[in-house]
Amino acid sequence: MTFAEIAGQEEKEQIPPALREALASCFEQVEQALSALLPVPDGPEARLLEAMRYATLGGGKRLRAFLVLQSASLFAVSPTSAARVAAAVEMVHAYSLVHDDLPAMDNDDLRRGKPATHRAYDEATAILVGDALQSRAFEVLAEADTHSDPQARCELVAALAAAIGARGMAGGQMIDMLAEGQTLTASEVTRLQALKTGRLIAFSAEAGAILGRAAPSQRHALAWYGRDLGAAFQIVDDLLDALGSSAEIGKTAGKDAAVGKATLVSILGAERARAQAERLGTQAAAHLDSFGERAELLRQLAAYVVARRR
Amino acid sequence: MTFAEIAGQEEKEQIPPALREALASCFEQVEQALSALLPVPDGPEARLLEAMRYATLGGGKRLRAFLVLQSASLFAVSPTSAARVAAAVEMVHAYSLVHDDLPAMDNDDLRRGKPATHRAYDEATAILVGDALQSRAFEVLAEADTHSDPQARCELVAALAAAIGARGMAGGQMIDMLAEGQTLTASEVTRLQALKTGRLIAFSAEAGAILGRAAPSQRHALAWYGRDLGAAFQIVDDLLDALGSSAEIGKTAGKDAAVGKATLVSILGAERARAQAERLGTQAAAHLDSFGERAELLRQLAAYVVARRR
Repeated sequence: MTFAEIAGQEEKEQIPPALREALASCFEQVEQALSALLPVPDGPEARLLEAMRYATLGGGKRLRAFLVLQSASLFAVSPTSAARVAAAVEMVHAYSLVHDDLPAMDNDDLRRGKPATHRAYDEATAILVGDALQSRAFEVLAEADTHSDPQARCELVAALAAAIGARGMAGGQMIDMLAEGQTLTASEVTRLQALKTGRLIAFSAEAGAILGRAAPSQRHALAWYGRDLGAAFQIVDDLLDALGSSAEIGKTAGKDAAVGKATLVSILGAERARAQAERLGTQAAAHLDSFGERAELLRQLAAYVVARRR
Repeated sequence: MTFAEIAGQEEKEQIPPALREALASCFEQVEQALSALLPVPDGPEARLLEAMRYATLGGGKRLRAFLVLQSASLFAVSPTSAARVAAAVEMVHAYSLVHDDLPAMDNDDLRRGKPATHRAYDEATAILVGDALQSRAFEVLAEADTHSDPQARCELVAALAAAIGARGMAGGQMIDMLAEGQTLTASEVTRLQALKTGRLIAFSAEAGAILGRAAPSQRHALAWYGRDLGAAFQIVDDLLDALGSSAEIGKTAGKDAAVGKATLVSILGAERARAQAERLGTQAAAHLDSFGERAELLRQLAAYVVARRR
């Protein structure tokens, strides 16, 4: 279920109309870009591309893509550049979900309201889907269509790679697996989540500044916005996992408790965790002060990420 | 077992002294570069880096690294640039082996004469090792230390990504899995192997030309050399699998026949397959004519790849 769909269904969440429209537009743009960037070839390898499309198209909140498009809009980046980077980030996010859902990892059969890739296809195909989505993301970033300046393209590749590698997303996933059944402190959980999900979300917000050849201070402000937003997003995810139903959130609910996984919700309790998410959302918005009115949708997003119910 | 070690032990293979020395030097350089590029951090994510080092260091023939270093030497590329690209290519090769060995893929317990990564660690760690090695390879290519010209770095990233993605290595692996138990023609097997192993070997040979900002004709000549060399290398690998013992080749022998996997050896028979490998080795060397004496080691390598017994 996309943000835009949620927004249409849940009037009580009172999503501002401009944000709702921008989210719906983002969803369409990214869907088109992903579809164009993942064409199905002839030959028996077509199955791999079909599975990559299954894992990537038609679902997801597109939070990361939205951050790329919105941060790019602050710097008059061309829509094509922004859409390509948004698609690359969503490919990486999809790859991480496909591998995380594997039996040897989180062993989850349900993703985005439909069977996980290893259930819709098979495990070996799912491993290759993740591998090939990662490669394709870097290929898209490095190609000339993404930016006229190769320096900007190299910065995108290096920053994304750092965000998702052993000191980023993959490292966070490693810590997460080692932590199952362990007692973690709140600060250990915070660091784990900063690596596992925070770094990619921060990169997404930073990407517009890289595309726009922005000043370092602006790039850092957006990265900090992304970090705090990502932390808030993760706490709300954990709250929804603890309190929601699978049908509502589109993936298996109650997983964290079932496997004894420590979250800020299990450590602090739901009430304090929600207060922490609200603090982080406010803090995220504060990083945008220097952008003035132009960053209004990113501020609204921070509020919405905290208030969402799915 | 490295080429250099093999060369030391097998005098009957009569490896030319200059090639033997260059292979040993390559092994040392790449080992140092890999070790420096994969430092172990503090924190619980150290386990992931340790497993990445386990999968990458201290073994392998370093064929791909050698191709990078030798092709780079044709264009006066700095040793640091060449060593970084060689290390990145070996990271990608190691990632592919770690994932290929997983139970859901080829289910192989032995690699480079020691337990496969998912046996030495566990499956989840092995999945993350492959994922993070891929990210690290692209990060290394995109970083400024790899080349002063960001355009060259982007070309490396894009060309490597294309070589290993859904239309390259991962696509070849997909076809390979679909082909198990099927009857393939010689041309289908040739295409499968060109994708699965040929594209990365071709990239390795091409990389020196990218680093050296060489003319397209030179870049293409090296890529064709790599393609033919890779095809010859794969046939010899299949011959060794069919005829050798596990102890000799450092990985499980007889696997192809055991799982009913079609190879040129099973289709053409050992004798015709060996003749084909020899033709390809000769053809590979012929692509190097325009480089004259400077490409002598690459020519010797082509002869050695065909003649090797492990």
